[in-house]
Amino acid sequence: IKCDWFHTSLCCTHNTRWNFLCLWVLFFVFFFFIVVLILFPLTSIPDCLGNHFSVLKLNLYISDIEISRAQIPKPVNQLAEEVGLLPEELEAYGRSKAKVCLSLLDRLHTQPDGKYVLVAGITPTPLGEGKSTVTIGLVQALSAHLSLNSFACLRQPSQGPTFGVKGGAAGGGYAQVIPMEEFNLHLTGDIHAITAANNLVAAAIDARMLHEATQSDKALFNRLVPSVNGVRKFSPIQFSRLQRLGIDKTNPASLTPEEVTSFVRLDLDPSKITWQRVVDTNDRFLRKITVGQANTEKGQIRETGFDIAVASEIMAILALADSLEDMKNRLARMVVGTSRSGQPVTTEDLGVSGALTVLMKDAIKPTLMQTLEGTPVFVHAGPFANIAHGNSSVLADKLALKLVGRDGFVVTEAGFGADIGMEKFFNIKCRASGLRPNVVVLVATIRALKMHGGGPNVSAGAPLPKEYIDENLSLVAAGCHSNLKKQIQIAHLFGIPVVVALNVFKTDTQAEIDLVCEIAKGCGASDAVPCNHWAQGGRGSIKLAQAVNEAASRPSNFQFLYNIEMPIADKIRTIAQKVYGADDIELSPAAKDKIDYYNQQGYGLLPICMAKTHLSLSHMPDKKGAPTGFVLPIRDVRASIGAGFIYPLVGTMSTMPGLPTRPCFYDIDLDPVTGEITGLF
Amino acid sequence: IKCDWFHTSLCCTHNTRWNFLCLWVLFFVFFFFIVVLILFPLTSIPDCLGNHFSVLKLNLYISDIEISRAQIPKPVNQLAEEVGLLPEELEAYGRSKAKVCLSLLDRLHTQPDGKYVLVAGITPTPLGEGKSTVTIGLVQALSAHLSLNSFACLRQPSQGPTFGVKGGAAGGGYAQVIPMEEFNLHLTGDIHAITAANNLVAAAIDARMLHEATQSDKALFNRLVPSVNGVRKFSPIQFSRLQRLGIDKTNPASLTPEEVTSFVRLDLDPSKITWQRVVDTNDRFLRKITVGQANTEKGQIRETGFDIAVASEIMAILALADSLEDMKNRLARMVVGTSRSGQPVTTEDLGVSGALTVLMKDAIKPTLMQTLEGTPVFVHAGPFANIAHGNSSVLADKLALKLVGRDGFVVTEAGFGADIGMEKFFNIKCRASGLRPNVVVLVATIRALKMHGGGPNVSAGAPLPKEYIDENLSLVAAGCHSNLKKQIQIAHLFGIPVVVALNVFKTDTQAEIDLVCEIAKGCGASDAVPCNHWAQGGRGSIKLAQAVNEAASRPSNFQFLYNIEMPIADKIRTIAQKVYGADDIELSPAAKDKIDYYNQQGYGLLPICMAKTHLSLSHMPDKKGAPTGFVLPIRDVRASIGAGFIYPLVGTMSTMPGLPTRPCFYDIDLDPVTGEITGLF
Repeated sequence: IKCDWFHTSLCCTHNTRWNFLCLWVLFFVFFFFIVVLILFPLTSIPDCLGNHFSVLKLNLYISDIEISRAQIPKPVNQLAEEVGLLPEELEAYGRSKAKVCLSLLDRLHTQPDGKYVLVAGITPTPLGEGKSTVTIGLVQALSAHLSLNSFACLRQPSQGPTFGVKGGAAGGGYAQVIPMEEFNLHLTGDIHAITAANNLVAAAIDARMLHEATQSDKALFNRLVPSVNGVRKFSPIQFSRLQRLGIDKTNPASLTPEEVTSFVRLDLDPSKITWQRVVDTNDRFLRKITVGQANTEKGQIRETGFDIAVASEIMAILALADSLEDMKNRLARMVVGTSRSGQPVTTEDLGVSGALTVLMKDAIKPTLMQTLEGTPVFVHAGPFANIAHGNSSVLADKLALKLVGRDGFVVTEAGFGADIGMEKFFNIKCRASGLRPNVVVLVATIRALKMHGGGPNVSAGAPLPKEYIDENLSLVAAGCHSNLKKQIQIAHLFGIPVVVALNVFKTDTQAEIDLVCEIAKGCGASDAVPCNHWAQGGRGSIKLAQAVNEAASRPSNFQFLYNIEMPIADKIRTIAQKVYGADDIELSPAAKDKIDYYNQQGYGLLPICMAKTHLSLSHMPDKKGAPTGFVLPIRDVRASIGAGFIYPLVGTMSTMPGLPTRPCFYDIDLDPVTGEITGLF
Repeated sequence: IKCDWFHTSLCCTHNTRWNFLCLWVLFFVFFFFIVVLILFPLTSIPDCLGNHFSVLKLNLYISDIEISRAQIPKPVNQLAEEVGLLPEELEAYGRSKAKVCLSLLDRLHTQPDGKYVLVAGITPTPLGEGKSTVTIGLVQALSAHLSLNSFACLRQPSQGPTFGVKGGAAGGGYAQVIPMEEFNLHLTGDIHAITAANNLVAAAIDARMLHEATQSDKALFNRLVPSVNGVRKFSPIQFSRLQRLGIDKTNPASLTPEEVTSFVRLDLDPSKITWQRVVDTNDRFLRKITVGQANTEKGQIRETGFDIAVASEIMAILALADSLEDMKNRLARMVVGTSRSGQPVTTEDLGVSGALTVLMKDAIKPTLMQTLEGTPVFVHAGPFANIAHGNSSVLADKLALKLVGRDGFVVTEAGFGADIGMEKFFNIKCRASGLRPNVVVLVATIRALKMHGGGPNVSAGAPLPKEYIDENLSLVAAGCHSNLKKQIQIAHLFGIPVVVALNVFKTDTQAEIDLVCEIAKGCGASDAVPCNHWAQGGRGSIKLAQAVNEAASRPSNFQFLYNIEMPIADKIRTIAQKVYGADDIELSPAAKDKIDYYNQQGYGLLPICMAKTHLSLSHMPDKKGAPTGFVLPIRDVRASIGAGFIYPLVGTMSTMPGLPTRPCFYDIDLDPVTGEITGLF
């Protein structure tokens, strides 16, 4: 082979050895370059969240409304790589959100869990005291300012309030989840999946009642177990029903007429159907409706209603399930009503539970997003905080605890005040997950403390009375010595240290702030610090992050409030007395009957999920501070068997919000040229 | 620099020049490798669909149920790259589906459109004749076997029937869209977005009526135009209403009391609300309901109902919009009812149209999927084929026509028979899009032809009579000379050549197949070929693909059936006479009143969307073949102003399917260990 060009230009010049060496160096440089190019994506994947986060810098000199819009989220696959996810564990939904596969739990099962922090609040004003912003500010401080791995695990908000009164729920100011419009709208479709699953059950119930009312046993049997090429076979889900009925037969032809009857007739009592339809819209006109009025339904009308989608039991199941199999089993156990003979009827009896699992197969994967400072967030499940337990999912917490590693932090939030959200977090969620928390962050505001100290009423829409704008140390002190102190004591009942986070507003004075921190520490809080995350992002929560880190390093001594084997009434009484400060409980006759019925059905071993107002430690919303000397009335007792809790009703709980005269939607718009959304907040 | 190891091992051996050369070669090979590695992703992106498709091979020796499960879809980003999409134009939703950004239309606006093929059918039996499988088989043949660029544009199916009677709609056999469970379930959430938007309108209507009924003009005004820091301002959407009312003022304080009244009171007549709620579930008990029965709604009860989600006008808008701005304008124009003084009330009057656009911002992007042979498919919108126009989206077709390029093919499908779906495709969809079709593929089956030739009734669930299983040439011939011939003539009315695709079943004999093809060509079809895509995939449709390619190369002479400026009644009559073969139409008094009202409101220039049975060319489902000598009765006339059509009702159209005694969901299940889904088909 002749190769003159080589020789002339490089090889056969003055110093052959020098050229030789150059070439070898060039060759190895290129070789090295290629190796790096090929291996880099592999070597840069740590198996837990590394400290080599790319922090998104905040621009603190723009107006509030522009904050979210101004920050460009990092691509979700970059975020995923930074937190230690493998590409095959990620399912992107667009560029800024992704679902995370549960297989991660298997891969990291030997990894020690991080520290587990719960953000709860004192009894709030109707305006809310900022638990979500504290949660987000805290992880921004931990990850972006203290270089400690951290994850926030948040609830997905209902779309209803976004267009109604409350607006979005992505945090606020410089402590937000971005993009906030994705967070507040469809996200990755989990609530839509819940709506679809919930309403399939409802359609199945009414259609089944119609078919049972209009067909003979034989006709029902022939349709339910159809002859395919001359052969009748039970389907797997029908075998489950046969088993519950105690019928140990596999050949449909061998059933006795009595067995056929009990197999084909769920015999639902229309007045005892507890399953409601749901819609993720604030549609007050659906609170109470009559269905089945078309001629085609042959007069089978009945009264029922719609709840907001997040009130569905399926949402509570999503939040409590700890695997796909666990979710499937819970979905099959859901009780939709009672037969005329008093037997509970389940979704499995309806033959629909497999389809529910199929509808929910993607919803079970948590959604990865990020804060304004580019730190990771899981958004997953958002059950109601009154008729359900008001906490985000067990699975998101478990995944996050593995990802942050031993010295990292997972910060999650409980709905309502600590007397409700935190109590349910400990007694229901931690019981289901087996996880043990390390620190409680108790969020307080000067505003709420003044209210508990005797300040005038606070209500949404009305201007704040002057007590809340001017310095008033005596109201603050009185509030601290009542509600704040009591909520700290409640956390200590569970053996967990408390850090008080004072969410600072611009009307708060330094003397007020100092007073709160001093009293809180005097009441047993490990620490108490003011937080300015709303105005400054993570930088404003550095003191809180340091206090949490310090408190988490101490040994905790977690214990449940009650033994699960206690009788239902005793469990309710324990919560009422020890948490709310009631003298006793008073069960209505209806409540007593229900408790007897649940005991008889074997549901006595479930934990309790109190449905009580969040505006007072008592059942009376206007009793602020730390009321005593009251008896807690239990109007009724209900059960979510699939989710796995009994919920006593203390007063009436609305499960469907309404739209005001001028709902948020008036200001929500989209510019079709720029694609920019206005009016979402 | 000493470098002994180099010298010893390689350089200073027997032949220095040879080593030298080796090194240079090695160096250049590596250099070339790097250049390829860096440049490949750029150079391999064509600006239209290339022929360098990676075809997924079919395994023809497995059982039907395993077909979909056995094929591993190619990653959607690979598919996107193959069809010429840039990474920034793609929003992946998991690994096998992605939304495509509309910015593609700008990038490719100079690219010539491909050939536009519509798949329609003869009047079907209640079992359906396989238009979807023909569509998918045809693109599999074009792309994977003839190396012609092609795209299928399909409707997204409602989730209702998936769990009800019909099952999924992803095609069948070896002509399917994969993964079929993604196709049949939530997909990318478009139908959920429609449900949310539709029901927000419904909630807004009822809440507004309640607030108007219980508040004074002044209270309404103060709430609708609230004082913020002492200043009242109209929002942009309120200016639109003021403009419609002819009030040219910007200062809220300057409105006269009469102007305040007309501004704050939509004064909806409860008996004239046309807007229904929707749910994507077969829930027959919601067909007719009474809402507002809770005490909180203060006795404002009224009768209304739910439709299946795909019957929402918002679905029809999604299908007809040709940009984000167009969709926004259509959403704002939707009429929800009439005021007591007879004025139409729109979603913009309710203040909700901006929020609807925000809810629909992602739904407007078509979803990219693939066939079993890895060829590209857009799935986008699925409006009802009776009360709406039954065709997939304009935008998906437009994107696909650019992507396939001048010699490529876009194949889309029209619901029901050609007398309905095709007529609406031409007169409504093509009018909205400005696109002109090149070929109609008319799907026929021996089964349907025999029915039209006088065979006994065919019904779902019952075994087929023997006429349909044994050879019967006279029934086939009679069917061809009636319905098939008429449907070919209908396509020719629009100036478009027809290729008849005979969807072959295993009971069809060669003589029957040959007879259909011969008669079809005699009736003016450009070609007529048997198709075996169900059994063989694209290979079974090669002849059809060749015939379509041939027909598309001929010049076509497209024309609308009627001039849009004709009076409403004349437009209806034209369709009835020329398409259905009716002698005339007969308008009920209600229909006449509505036509007068629509003319008066300026809606007279809209095209017509007939709501007629698909089981006959006439309005009588049992009249098969090509009925003549009948008068088409128009019971009522309605309008979808946002979607942009008037829909005359010929008989009663059900807009909410029901669940049978044993719905499909009985067999649908998911294995929590393998994640495998069973029972979806």
